[in-house]
Amino acid sequence: MKIEIITIGNELLSGKTINSNTQYISKTLLKFGYRTHFASVYPDEKKELENGIKAALKRADLLIITGGLGPTIDDNTKEIVTNLLKIDLKFSGDIASDIEKRFGQIASLQEQSTIPKSGFVFKNEVGTAPGFAFLHYGKALILLPGVPVELEDMFEKHAMVFIQKHFPIKEKIYQEIINICLLAEIKIDALLKTIQLPDDITLGIYPSYGFVQVSITTKALNKMEATKKISDIKNQIALEFAEYIYISEDGKIERALHDLLIKKEEKIAFAESCTGGALSAKIVKLSDSSKYFLGSFITYSNELKKNILKVSEKTLLDHGAVSLPTVKEMIKGVFDLTDATYAIAVSGIAGPGGATEEKPIGTISLAVAKRGDEIDAGFLHLKGSLKGSRSSIIESSANIAFGILYRKIAHNLNYFEK
Amino acid sequence: MKIEIITIGNELLSGKTINSNTQYISKTLLKFGYRTHFASVYPDEKKELENGIKAALKRADLLIITGGLGPTIDDNTKEIVTNLLKIDLKFSGDIASDIEKRFGQIASLQEQSTIPKSGFVFKNEVGTAPGFAFLHYGKALILLPGVPVELEDMFEKHAMVFIQKHFPIKEKIYQEIINICLLAEIKIDALLKTIQLPDDITLGIYPSYGFVQVSITTKALNKMEATKKISDIKNQIALEFAEYIYISEDGKIERALHDLLIKKEEKIAFAESCTGGALSAKIVKLSDSSKYFLGSFITYSNELKKNILKVSEKTLLDHGAVSLPTVKEMIKGVFDLTDATYAIAVSGIAGPGGATEEKPIGTISLAVAKRGDEIDAGFLHLKGSLKGSRSSIIESSANIAFGILYRKIAHNLNYFEK
Repeated sequence: MKIEIITIGNELLSGKTINSNTQYISKTLLKFGYRTHFASVYPDEKKELENGIKAALKRADLLIITGGLGPTIDDNTKEIVTNLLKIDLKFSGDIASDIEKRFGQIASLQEQSTIPKSGFVFKNEVGTAPGFAFLHYGKALILLPGVPVELEDMFEKHAMVFIQKHFPIKEKIYQEIINICLLAEIKIDALLKTIQLPDDITLGIYPSYGFVQVSITTKALNKMEATKKISDIKNQIALEFAEYIYISEDGKIERALHDLLIKKEEKIAFAESCTGGALSAKIVKLSDSSKYFLGSFITYSNELKKNILKVSEKTLLDHGAVSLPTVKEMIKGVFDLTDATYAIAVSGIAGPGGATEEKPIGTISLAVAKRGDEIDAGFLHLKGSLKGSRSSIIESSANIAFGILYRKIAHNLNYFEK
Repeated sequence: MKIEIITIGNELLSGKTINSNTQYISKTLLKFGYRTHFASVYPDEKKELENGIKAALKRADLLIITGGLGPTIDDNTKEIVTNLLKIDLKFSGDIASDIEKRFGQIASLQEQSTIPKSGFVFKNEVGTAPGFAFLHYGKALILLPGVPVELEDMFEKHAMVFIQKHFPIKEKIYQEIINICLLAEIKIDALLKTIQLPDDITLGIYPSYGFVQVSITTKALNKMEATKKISDIKNQIALEFAEYIYISEDGKIERALHDLLIKKEEKIAFAESCTGGALSAKIVKLSDSSKYFLGSFITYSNELKKNILKVSEKTLLDHGAVSLPTVKEMIKGVFDLTDATYAIAVSGIAGPGGATEEKPIGTISLAVAKRGDEIDAGFLHLKGSLKGSRSSIIESSANIAFGILYRKIAHNLNYFEK
């Protein structure tokens, strides 16, 4: 069975909007064991979209089409698909009264309440455009609104139920992700290459800023069989990288740290210079972070490093703001000003300005500490990508700092060599 | 002339990776006046990709294919395209010695230095896989590496030059974006609907978190003609929303604020609670922000609000952390602790916890001030989307705060009613 996702909209073809709907749908399908074979994007033009849907009907068994269900002149999906399938339209009093109840007498009421005479209707509980599904000579078409919150609400509630009913699958795809922090892709790759893989298991390696994800994919009748199938491979990887692996439902290291801090009832606070609040912002994005996160001192200027964190003038003069003595004094400042049991301090050259021969762009001084213990401090030498180097250096610094703190709390290990 | 972007990779069809290459390419093409007609994604499977390229050759004149040029077993693009076009491969000593110079004797040297006997070769100055271009019966195919930094480096340097040479365009597409902060989409939309549009001008409206972008698109022979064509429409919009419009090369309000602060030589600092460093992190992402950004106090806990910013115990008890007296005292704390000439303080309920009947999720107390002037403070009532409501509330709060500060510095206007 082959699935094609079709998204519609000039804004997706002008680069204005990134195609997050395709990502959401394919991710959700995979969660339920379905694999997406094709994805395509068409402009808001009737003829092009019609041809695209025809082509998709030839190569795919299930078409998931998002967008073009609204009331404006650009919205052609309902018309094109019902024409293709030769289905008439009718007015639905039920949908009209539901929309009216929620939005009042809106101008698009008539249009949004006009639905195909046959097929399935998915209620839109967020916006106004209902979704539809049609069975057509052993194939199926699902039409969904393009607004992400409306699509997402409708997809799991209605579309996934329809798909599972009409395309039940025996052998599902199962994928497990292993998250690894603080290790370079090349080291992990070297191990993966030595693993003997059975035919029905594939490995993937996905490096990101400061962490790497390894995927193990297989097909199985159920979760239990899948777990059994991949357990051997998983154990080999887990054993090799034990102290670098973190458990995180969304793959992010701050999520792992968040869960661990809540469990261990520790408190954290940061002092950030070059990352400028990126560490704090990542933590505060997670709900319940108030249980352990006290705050952060974004001492971007040297004046604030001195006045707030009490980094000494002499340290800044002798060693510079990007130095181990500076980040160690920043840690001390955090412990003095808060009740945190753990602290992170970071000061570095994110570029493009500020670099010297001795401290090029990507030189980051980082300190991670448990109150009362010796401070674990050292330098990172990050390369950053060609473009957006500043952002990628900040992103990597944050993830590495979290990795070091996670490892310290979970395994009581230092990261930097003495 | 029709352009199709083809991206390749199972990770794009499993939702693992978002398709940023399609966005980058279509955006860059538009910058040079070219419109993308189709975009499609294929798995790492020879047959599917081959069929996809064949289908694209039928409907498009220019195919831009990214990915699948590496040395591994998954990388089939070079082979498929040269087979289709009946072009033999040869070893290139030039490319081999260039790769060797930069990366040494790598295992993939032979494979990456094997290139088509005819066509055009684009040097990869970042990684190892060169790009290629072919002319084929009036159509063209461009093959580029899938790694974003390699693609981006090669695209403007080589691919765009090739495209402009072989597909020169007379009438180019020009698009101008008007950025509007602090106004709801519905207000802007109401005005846009009253504007009489000539046939060859289209308007688009794109709401985001805390700001709205309006696009004016037309076709013209050159920039001057385009500017003239759209000037009337642009002026109508500009006149109506003058004090809400900001100039920003990337559309972001913090970029506009950044440029304004550097120009005016002002200094800023923040006190953040619910946004947890999001304001600071956005500012520090911009290089040269050290010229005006002093730092931020992320006083997430009430203890830090009291100990660092000197918010009084009584204020917190009487009014709560989310209140106008609290954010006003936070502003005072910022001015006392720094030399900032402007300050922002924000404290709110980002959810999902912490809400009360009186202060539901999305209630944000916000203060923006110029040193010495009365503090401009008030509440925002943000809805947030269904999912990810916490992130969207933080994002909106940050953008609205920046909008208020921008408007204050640029036009000396208060935002909140007295």
